[in-house]
Amino acid sequence: MENGFSVKKLVVMGDSISDCGRARPVGEGSPDALGNGYVRLLDAMVSVDHPEWGLHFINMGVSGNTSRDLAARWANDLIAQKPDYVLIQIGINDTWRYFDRPLQPDVHVTTEEYRANLGAMIDSAEAAGCRVILSSPFFLEPNRDDPMRAAADRYRAEMARCAKARGVPYIDLQERFDAVLTRHYSCRMALDRVHPNTMGQYVIASALEQAFEEIFGA
Amino acid sequence: MENGFSVKKLVVMGDSISDCGRARPVGEGSPDALGNGYVRLLDAMVSVDHPEWGLHFINMGVSGNTSRDLAARWANDLIAQKPDYVLIQIGINDTWRYFDRPLQPDVHVTTEEYRANLGAMIDSAEAAGCRVILSSPFFLEPNRDDPMRAAADRYRAEMARCAKARGVPYIDLQERFDAVLTRHYSCRMALDRVHPNTMGQYVIASALEQAFEEIFGA
Amino acid sequence: MENGFSVKKLVVMGDSISDCGRARPVGEGSPDALGNGYVRLLDAMVSVDHPEWGLHFINMGVSGNTSRDLAARWANDLIAQKPDYVLIQIGINDTWRYFDRPLQPDVHVTTEEYRANLGAMIDSAEAAGCRVILSSPFFLEPNRDDPMRAAADRYRAEMARCAKARGVPYIDLQERFDAVLTRHYSCRMALDRVHPNTMGQYVIASALEQAFEEIFGA
Amino acid sequence: MENGFSVKKLVVMGDSISDCGRARPVGEGSPDALGNGYVRLLDAMVSVDHPEWGLHFINMGVSGNTSRDLAARWANDLIAQKPDYVLIQIGINDTWRYFDRPLQPDVHVTTEEYRANLGAMIDSAEAAGCRVILSSPFFLEPNRDDPMRAAADRYRAEMARCAKARGVPYIDLQERFDAVLTRHYSCRMALDRVHPNTMGQYVIASALEQAFEEIFGA
Amino acid sequence: MENGFSVKKLVVMGDSISDCGRARPVGEGSPDALGNGYVRLLDAMVSVDHPEWGLHFINMGVSGNTSRDLAARWANDLIAQKPDYVLIQIGINDTWRYFDRPLQPDVHVTTEEYRANLGAMIDSAEAAGCRVILSSPFFLEPNRDDPMRAAADRYRAEMARCAKARGVPYIDLQERFDAVLTRHYSCRMALDRVHPNTMGQYVIASALEQAFEEIFGA
Amino acid sequence: MENGFSVKKLVVMGDSISDCGRARPVGEGSPDALGNGYVRLLDAMVSVDHPEWGLHFINMGVSGNTSRDLAARWANDLIAQKPDYVLIQIGINDTWRYFDRPLQPDVHVTTEEYRANLGAMIDSAEAAGCRVILSSPFFLEPNRDDPMRAAADRYRAEMARCAKARGVPYIDLQERFDAVLTRHYSCRMALDRVHPNTMGQYVIASALEQAFEEIFGA
Amino acid sequence: MENGFSVKKLVVMGDSISDCGRARPVGEGSPDALGNGYVRLLDAMVSVDHPEWGLHFINMGVSGNTSRDLAARWANDLIAQKPDYVLIQIGINDTWRYFDRPLQPDVHVTTEEYRANLGAMIDSAEAAGCRVILSSPFFLEPNRDDPMRAAADRYRAEMARCAKARGVPYIDLQERFDAVLTRHYSCRMALDRVHPNTMGQYVIASALEQAFEEIFGA
Amino acid sequence: MENGFSVKKLVVMGDSISDCGRARPVGEGSPDALGNGYVRLLDAMVSVDHPEWGLHFINMGVSGNTSRDLAARWANDLIAQKPDYVLIQIGINDTWRYFDRPLQPDVHVTTEEYRANLGAMIDSAEAAGCRVILSSPFFLEPNRDDPMRAAADRYRAEMARCAKARGVPYIDLQERFDAVLTRHYSCRMALDRVHPNTMGQYVIASALEQAFEEIFGA
Repeated sequence: MENGFSVKKLVVMGDSISDCGRARPVGEGSPDALGNGYVRLLDAMVSVDHPEWGLHFINMGVSGNTSRDLAARWANDLIAQKPDYVLIQIGINDTWRYFDRPLQPDVHVTTEEYRANLGAMIDSAEAAGCRVILSSPFFLEPNRDDPMRAAADRYRAEMARCAKARGVPYIDLQERFDAVLTRHYSCRMALDRVHPNTMGQYVIASALEQAFEEIFGA
Repeated sequence: MENGFSVKKLVVMGDSISDCGRARPVGEGSPDALGNGYVRLLDAMVSVDHPEWGLHFINMGVSGNTSRDLAARWANDLIAQKPDYVLIQIGINDTWRYFDRPLQPDVHVTTEEYRANLGAMIDSAEAAGCRVILSSPFFLEPNRDDPMRAAADRYRAEMARCAKARGVPYIDLQERFDAVLTRHYSCRMALDRVHPNTMGQYVIASALEQAFEEIFGA
Repeated sequence: MENGFSVKKLVVMGDSISDCGRARPVGEGSPDALGNGYVRLLDAMVSVDHPEWGLHFINMGVSGNTSRDLAARWANDLIAQKPDYVLIQIGINDTWRYFDRPLQPDVHVTTEEYRANLGAMIDSAEAAGCRVILSSPFFLEPNRDDPMRAAADRYRAEMARCAKARGVPYIDLQERFDAVLTRHYSCRMALDRVHPNTMGQYVIASALEQAFEEIFGA
Repeated sequence: MENGFSVKKLVVMGDSISDCGRARPVGEGSPDALGNGYVRLLDAMVSVDHPEWGLHFINMGVSGNTSRDLAARWANDLIAQKPDYVLIQIGINDTWRYFDRPLQPDVHVTTEEYRANLGAMIDSAEAAGCRVILSSPFFLEPNRDDPMRAAADRYRAEMARCAKARGVPYIDLQERFDAVLTRHYSCRMALDRVHPNTMGQYVIASALEQAFEEIFGA
Repeated sequence: MENGFSVKKLVVMGDSISDCGRARPVGEGSPDALGNGYVRLLDAMVSVDHPEWGLHFINMGVSGNTSRDLAARWANDLIAQKPDYVLIQIGINDTWRYFDRPLQPDVHVTTEEYRANLGAMIDSAEAAGCRVILSSPFFLEPNRDDPMRAAADRYRAEMARCAKARGVPYIDLQERFDAVLTRHYSCRMALDRVHPNTMGQYVIASALEQAFEEIFGA
Repeated sequence: MENGFSVKKLVVMGDSISDCGRARPVGEGSPDALGNGYVRLLDAMVSVDHPEWGLHFINMGVSGNTSRDLAARWANDLIAQKPDYVLIQIGINDTWRYFDRPLQPDVHVTTEEYRANLGAMIDSAEAAGCRVILSSPFFLEPNRDDPMRAAADRYRAEMARCAKARGVPYIDLQERFDAVLTRHYSCRMALDRVHPNTMGQYVIASALEQAFEEIFGA
Repeated sequence: MENGFSVKKLVVMGDSISDCGRARPVGEGSPDALGNGYVRLLDAMVSVDHPEWGLHFINMGVSGNTSRDLAARWANDLIAQKPDYVLIQIGINDTWRYFDRPLQPDVHVTTEEYRANLGAMIDSAEAAGCRVILSSPFFLEPNRDDPMRAAADRYRAEMARCAKARGVPYIDLQERFDAVLTRHYSCRMALDRVHPNTMGQYVIASALEQAFEEIFGA
Repeated sequence: MENGFSVKKLVVMGDSISDCGRARPVGEGSPDALGNGYVRLLDAMVSVDHPEWGLHFINMGVSGNTSRDLAARWANDLIAQKPDYVLIQIGINDTWRYFDRPLQPDVHVTTEEYRANLGAMIDSAEAAGCRVILSSPFFLEPNRDDPMRAAADRYRAEMARCAKARGVPYIDLQERFDAVLTRHYSCRMALDRVHPNTMGQYVIASALEQAFEEIFGA
């Protein structure tokens, strides 16, 4: 490349938390193409703070996706991009469907299937020479006895176990939000406790940027 | 009246839960003018089930209102309508502002002020020959230790005390929602636990219709 | 299912009275996906009053449909859903086309064809293990000598006979509306006497919910 | 006038049947300014068939108006135009409000008030040198026992008596529609039996054009 | 047909003068489906004045069409409808393209080709048992020395000759407009002298209705 | 001024030909503020070709204006701007109203009034130290016997006489258009022969730029 | 305050760089009310990183403002808010008007006037007990010989001098951008070198947050 | 051709500078179809000033195109039109992608590839009997040391060399803009220094018209 950067292509595979109106079919090429969520903010922060990382972000989030949907479009939407890295941000819809569509079992994804979907996606990525980064699902409810929080924690635990077993970097966003929730009520960051506004997006982006120091900063 | 009904004019004074896009300046004259919330549904149910009550609904809800805002427009928006009855559905914004705008104390309404506002409005209505019906604030969170639920409960308790002290009919919508929340997670009825969808609107409308049996059914 | 409900999938096959802007291709997954007509209201009422029925509503109404159109999309739109129940709400367009398009005979459906279409659809549903519920066409005109009311009554009679012959539950919505029309002029519920507003939708939904007590309440 | 026509300014005072989206504040100056109802069609027909009449149409219809509303804006909207003729097309809303808003007596206009309003408007017009033409209210329901048709007939009868008493030209549009209704069901011309489509507008416009032969054709 | 009419299906094949926003793919079924031009007006006039003709109008006009375009879609858009009659209203775009796109010869249609196109379309229609009615092109410019008027007159003459040779009914709309143009300047009916407003549409519709007396009135 | 230009403020007072969607209340500050007509094009051409003139254009055209309207807003819209020059482009609506609104004499402006309006505006401008430039009305019809062209020629002659009598610069745009009309039919530049497209706007702008050589180029 | 924070009200007075579609009349109450620019991002970052500061942001930016406009609305838009702090972000329009509207001297603000405006605003704020923070104008052009950059530097120097003379905190955003411009071409952050996208907004917000450490962090 | 012109079809192949919202799939047939950029203006100027050239413009610009994109659609978009001339206006995106998308090497076009693309397109055009005119890329930045200007100059030099080598007419638009930039700051003509407003479009159109004198004026 003429500009002397060593470019690394990082694709975000996720749900509405990542999507945020990103461009179709591929979310790259301009800030607007990255959507108006944490991906655009993270791209901006990394571009300013760490241009030497040479990270090229591509947003392939799709609203409503569960891990099952993600796995189904993995070849087309991820592998075909020939990525260097993939950030997987998935799991809250696997959780949520039991609560907002309890009578629609065909859209329910069990924790077992979630684990299997994560495994298959990681296998596929690594076989294609793409390194994986896992970013945990989260629910902006500090009460761990809340049924949906408790369920989200189960999916999160699966991802953590998976990351540990595979030696893959893992960022626990729930922990970050839990810390902020000791100072702010959930509605400050997400009215429905799922979709973060700018404040919640900054929690995600700053957590990811910090984690990226380990991955890209050496 | 030619049609032989004895008409009773019932004005709803409330916030966004009542407003729901009702017509301006006065929400009456057609179903659409009543907005797309529980007021239109209640009007439909009462018209079908109890035409003999002769209830003419007027929706004067305004999104974002606290009890302070309601009191400020009481003369213009209620008394000037020469109503027979007023349904007061207020209090969740008095609660919410401490949680979504904690740094904006000028919009905070204390429970003391809430009590005073309710009292002043009832005095004004009764002085004008208008009978008052109180409908409690509610928050679709079953965990009573949740800070915002706990706060909402304090405002609700104020309204209950006020109703008892003044001998005014009082409908506890929180109790109704709590019963339904034993079967459904909150997101089924309101993504933000504040603004009910059709299912939540039916909870309200059926509770009010049942309470109206006592008031108008004799 | 994890949540312990025994789920029953109930698909509504109908015309614009059911459609009301429901989601495409399949009207399920959220209240908005059910459209803004009686189906959404019925879903809300049943969810609140009878969660134990475990009814999952799917709205497959299509504006303008006659029984002929319904039969033509029966395999794709109904059978492919693997439903437990189907609610058939059809017939007013079979009637209406003689009155609003008298010169377009290719869209006219005779009562004979209507009977045959109903029969074929019931056969197909039952062969697929799906139970049928019939909901009559109606016209909000109390004068039985009105030509279109008289015609609608003929189609309704066909459906009633069919229901009796097949031992299928049948809800006569015209009777319900006729009762309400003794107290309200038709324009209160439907300006064109065909498409019900919220008040007319409540007449339908409450009639269906009551009939469902027999079907699902045992 | 340079063009050699003897211009006569004819203002239409009416309700939504006349309004049809006409320009504000004054409906004149272009075909679009006359709205998309019978007024524009009548203007077109007269311009083609009888340019020698020199009729300049001004549409001052306002949707929702009763005779009370018309009288209230008479000075501003009619007299200030210095008209030669006024066509009064009013009365269906006086009728309708008893049926669509039975519980809102403040918008009900009795036949007595209707008669008085007509009288006051005619007095005012004639005092200003403006000749009056009366055009009857109509309801596209052939069954004279229908309650709203019967009511509309009472208002129509008032207008006919008024026309006779004052020696003012009177066009009975109900009779025209009744004749057409022997061949077409009402929905061909107006889905709600009140607001005519192009076919209903042509019934009105051709009736008025024919009546104008007597008035302007001598 | 149950209603006792003998239905005749009449399809209009034309350009933007006929199209006027008619429904796609087939312009039939409701007044709006006929577009907002002369076809809807003619349908309304005939429905009121001559219901006994049993004419069912279908508008298949397409904006911008020349006779070449019309011929190209003749099988799909006309013959497939199995029409009883076709009204051909074509030719002004054949004329106009020489004046508004003089440098684009591939869209120019000579009078020779125009004649051939008319002949081929009539042959095709008659072979399919469909009777043809020809309606002349027109240009709202009374000066016959104007180049575009002179050109339009040449195409019109071709159509007239064709009608005479084939014994097909022919309505000369230019003559009608010329008569009106002695009383009104062209901008009263069409700002661009091509696309008629309501007044110009009435000239067409009344000319056609009068001509139809001969064809359908016997 | 810091930039070393000697700025001259030139305000355009005109009708829709000048207006073209210019900014309100004052058409200055950006190219878009000048509208999408000849004023923006002229500003661009002069800025490129003659930056040394230091001309600051302000578009104060208002669609539909006659000379009477222009005179009525002269003080507010022109004098208050403290202009150095005013370009008056008015007269086609004075002409047109006799043809498109022949029956509305209150909007007719005679040539006598046109002359008087021009005189009054010039007096007012000159008294305020503002120099006047006159730009003739035009009608894109080469046939001088056409009634509207003939009328436009009479207004144009008035302006020419006025310019001569007052020693004011005068640009005859009709002559320019007549020359172009020998090569192109009118619809190439203006479908209604009044409102120029880009091609017609270039005719105006190049004529004005050439005339400005005399005025500003010394 | 009940929540135990010591609230500080900080009002942003600025131009389009601050405005970004903030709510009218007062930009406070929700993240959307702060617009979609650096103010919302800064609010999010400070809320997450430094909730203990208790900063309540109010965005009063107005697109297009120069220091003259800011001073003109100082009493209404700032003082009336009873602020604890004001952040002044102004000056690029003072600069730009010489370059984009060189011929419109009435909108030019000299550096002398800029200095005076700043002084007057600081005096007014301090007299009202409001502390001032100055944020420099910037232009995303690294070439200091570029005429507009050179001009922007002169206004920036005035602000720096003013800050020093008054002992007021001053953040030099140009220096921040200059540092980033050694790694990225200007179009990465602002296509027109004036209005920052998310990446440019992050440069501003992180610079301000860092500077706020000194001001609010003690 | 009947009108006696000798028509030459000139197709513009370019990027967003040419595109400007032109019609799809082919930008011809009306001024609007040419987009709102320099192509429409050039067409207007040539039509007025040089109708004898008989130039028919077709705009086939596509926003965002590099020379690689242009070459890829050369057969479909150019050759299939059977053009007499092609104007190639390409290169600024080849340049820009290194600056606005430095991390996306797959969209970078080197000067070597640019030269090859130009060569291949010229070969293809000439083989099809189409004459080529080259119009240089430009960047509205007068500082030749600016990195993007320097890069643009390299692509421009390639085009100039190519034109010379092939004996093809070449218009250096950068030189034209450089001359204007001695009098106006870049933002007068293009806020982002790439996309010209009306003033910049006139610079292009007048340069091209002047160059066309040599090509078409003999």
